[in-house]
Amino acid sequence: MNKYWSPLVNKLTPYVPGEQPKLDKLVKLNTNENPYGPSPKVLEAIKEVTADSLRLYPDPNSDRLKQTIANYYNLEANQVFVGNGSDEVLAIVFQALFKHDDEQRPLLFPDISYSFYPVYCGLYDIHYTAIELDELFQIKVKSYLRPNSGIIFANPNAPTGILLSLEDIAELLEANTESVVVIDEAYIDFGGETAVALVNQFPNLLIVQTLSKSRSLAGLRVGLALGNAELIEALERVKNSFNSYPLDRLAQAGAIAAFEDVEYFNETCQTIIEDRESLVAALEQLQFRVLPSAANFVFARHTKLDAELLATKLRNRGIIVRYFNKARINQFLRITVGTLEQNQQLIDGIIEIMQETE
Amino acid sequence: MNKYWSPLVNKLTPYVPGEQPKLDKLVKLNTNENPYGPSPKVLEAIKEVTADSLRLYPDPNSDRLKQTIANYYNLEANQVFVGNGSDEVLAIVFQALFKHDDEQRPLLFPDISYSFYPVYCGLYDIHYTAIELDELFQIKVKSYLRPNSGIIFANPNAPTGILLSLEDIAELLEANTESVVVIDEAYIDFGGETAVALVNQFPNLLIVQTLSKSRSLAGLRVGLALGNAELIEALERVKNSFNSYPLDRLAQAGAIAAFEDVEYFNETCQTIIEDRESLVAALEQLQFRVLPSAANFVFARHTKLDAELLATKLRNRGIIVRYFNKARINQFLRITVGTLEQNQQLIDGIIEIMQETE
Ligand SMILES: Cc1ncc(COP(=O)(O)O)c(C=O)c1O
Ligand SMILES: Cc1ncc(COP(=O)(O)O)c(C=O)c1O
Repeated sequence: MNKYWSPLVNKLTPYVPGEQPKLDKLVKLNTNENPYGPSPKVLEAIKEVTADSLRLYPDPNSDRLKQTIANYYNLEANQVFVGNGSDEVLAIVFQALFKHDDEQRPLLFPDISYSFYPVYCGLYDIHYTAIELDELFQIKVKSYLRPNSGIIFANPNAPTGILLSLEDIAELLEANTESVVVIDEAYIDFGGETAVALVNQFPNLLIVQTLSKSRSLAGLRVGLALGNAELIEALERVKNSFNSYPLDRLAQAGAIAAFEDVEYFNETCQTIIEDRESLVAALEQLQFRVLPSAANFVFARHTKLDAELLATKLRNRGIIVRYFNKARINQFLRITVGTLEQNQQLIDGIIEIMQETE
Repeated sequence: MNKYWSPLVNKLTPYVPGEQPKLDKLVKLNTNENPYGPSPKVLEAIKEVTADSLRLYPDPNSDRLKQTIANYYNLEANQVFVGNGSDEVLAIVFQALFKHDDEQRPLLFPDISYSFYPVYCGLYDIHYTAIELDELFQIKVKSYLRPNSGIIFANPNAPTGILLSLEDIAELLEANTESVVVIDEAYIDFGGETAVALVNQFPNLLIVQTLSKSRSLAGLRVGLALGNAELIEALERVKNSFNSYPLDRLAQAGAIAAFEDVEYFNETCQTIIEDRESLVAALEQLQFRVLPSAANFVFARHTKLDAELLATKLRNRGIIVRYFNKARINQFLRITVGTLEQNQQLIDGIIEIMQETE
């Protein structure tokens, strides 16, 4: 420990993102990126940002982007918050809405979910309880009906890919009126139904989304939150005490274009959904058990091969998938749905490995 | 107060940035942007980022950018931290290095300095004492020689523009070995000398810089910190508990190009320094008292006209300068050095206003 460090720093367990290798030519199925590029309109919009305008600060409030998102979802602009990736949006949510310092009321989230949630709790010293998914890896609304200072989960959940229905979510919101329920919809566009329709009904609902997955813009860093104007106001206050201008000019321009090109978005999402179904079928053929996925990835367990070994052997063939060394899921691999060609390379790799180890 | 808000949210007093008007054609001298665009190489580098690559996450560690900055300053890459504007870098510094929760040892900074510092203290609940600048608005090293859990000031200071010498800084670092001294060098390239040369000598020195001013990239949001590897490690830990990927692909590419084009950088800085001196002379002719500035702005007080009134009347003519309604400085205006033409428009505007009010 260094005497200059805040005591907090020693206690932190930072998040470890999936590998971002600097080599080309890898079949990269480890961080749930979209195999297709963003809408061509995104690059056009970025190119329209002139060099000269880069010398000027961006709009600190990203008003045009908020209005574009509000129009898309039929909300008001003051029901929209934007940030530097949904990671930043989530961090601000934890600080603004989940930090209540009441030991009797912990924050609740699934034991298996986005692994950044406990990291934020460490950063802001938020007391939490991890609620077990059931034996089918599903979220059970009943197990969240207990004193809490907030609830968060991903829907579809990550890394399982399993979707919770809107009816279940409405039931939870009705029963849990005293704290905020955050639905992290990072993967909602790949087969789920967004809970946006519930926003005007439930003042305690906050939805978080990202442009990194269904809008193919992981490299641009834009995330958003949708909810009651008062919840958004809390996020704005924290944001404006942290960084006035989190979205640069290029990110604002690109994100607007991405939301405007509805057709391209629908097409690529549809392709990924179809390719996911083919991938699932092929994996099942190769003796995998695959959890039902509504995301752009599948969570699959081979009935014979050890998951970590399989990941290593795939890696040796230039194919990267995500392995979590964590109780209950350490025999699973999380595999992003790639292009048809990438999915085939994965399948071929697995067949080879199976033949080798026979 | 909303029952869903964290108690913190009610206590916050967010930072209020200078106006970013959406109208063109204004003479915008209120937020210390560079009147010249960034190096043409920046836009080239941004254009080289392909649409397809935007679907992939950026390098979470910005390794190439860190190496470029390290080379520029003759440091190691692990002595460099980068973030989403220096506002984000500063926020992380406050959390990682200034939060010690010792009432006997407050954080120290000048009573007149970057007004985001007390805002960060609010966000992280950091106890601080504001130390008065002397009657000439100078920082006096002696007044910082008292128990503290950290010291921060801008050099040159903002909004005064006044520079503290490297000797004074070294004296402070020698006397203050038990806590971190942060020098916010947002404006150092306009006539000051960076304290980077002291980094290898003082493990308690951290320097924060931005690409928003001397590198004309306020619209791209890139800031950095330079210091001992252990201080940088503390910042990385907090950053990796907050947001894995704060710099998007375009920002990383553009920032690298900006640091590489040394010639363009030197030329534009030199032009601004020269134009500042002409502007100071012109203002003095018009009965302003101007503090000695080593920045890309001047801090000036008219001997007859009320500052707030003058700001309003300039605004009516389409010229925006920054006015702070704050004790001791409420008769000053902070005026960014613009192009020669903009500076002339400002001077002409002031002459008109003086004639009007005679
Ligand atoms: C469930 C979930 N939420 C949020 C994120 C963060 O996404 P981003 O910061 O790219 O918006 C991810 C990224 O993988 C995720 O899986
Ligand atoms: C002293 C000082 N530090 C830091 C900043 C923040 O700069 P940025 O967030 O654009 O890097 C400013 C901006 O005006 C400033 O004046």
